[in-house]
Amino acid sequence: MSDCIFCKIIAGDIPSDTLWEDENVIVFRDIDPKAPTHVLIVPKEHIVTFADFKEGQGDILLSMSKAARAVAEAEGVLDSGYRLIVNNGPDGGQEVLHLHMHLFGGRPIGPMIKRAE
Amino acid sequence: MSDCIFCKIIAGDIPSDTLWEDENVIVFRDIDPKAPTHVLIVPKEHIVTFADFKEGQGDILLSMSKAARAVAEAEGVLDSGYRLIVNNGPDGGQEVLHLHMHLFGGRPIGPMIKRAE
Repeated sequence: MSDCIFCKIIAGDIPSDTLWEDENVIVFRDIDPKAPTHVLIVPKEHIVTFADFKEGQGDILLSMSKAARAVAEAEGVLDSGYRLIVNNGPDGGQEVLHLHMHLFGGRPIGPMIKRAE
Repeated sequence: MSDCIFCKIIAGDIPSDTLWEDENVIVFRDIDPKAPTHVLIVPKEHIVTFADFKEGQGDILLSMSKAARAVAEAEGVLDSGYRLIVNNGPDGGQEVLHLHMHLFGGRPIGPMIKRAE
């Protein structure tokens, strides 16, 4: 996708702080970190949401799991714990329409979501 | 795991409000909903965290993706959007040590995490 910022990062056209990658997935730091560890786990293929995987793409999801383990370990948060968040669509707050799983760690992450007023 | 509450739900020993299931995954409502739609997508196998998948388990992850789509559609939030959250370990706030992906929808879910004080 020529106008997708994550596709440009994956293609190397935009620099990023890459922490880990394999053939399916790349991990880089969020440019606006909200916790001591805040990275994005991103499939190299342009998949829009978590609900868009097709038969035969299980290996991409396995790479996302591997990436979570590898990065949590490297960041020293595998045992202390971390939160994974995927925003899908407007109410989820998805800003880039290329699937990315946020990994937050390095402090207690707190309540999952704000309760409605 | 005989002492795992989600394994007991999966075995049918504890009743739950099951919305969707296939051979790999079950979806039921959270007992303390924090949004109009708040369900849990749970692998039937006792996997502890998102980082614990092994080679050969890609189909379980594909079922989690399928479950997200099916339930988001059934709840009318596929287009309006939804957030997926997986807590892993203490700082993540994981309460049940059996992987479960929260799906929140039905209203704007708001900020991802609270910024540190």
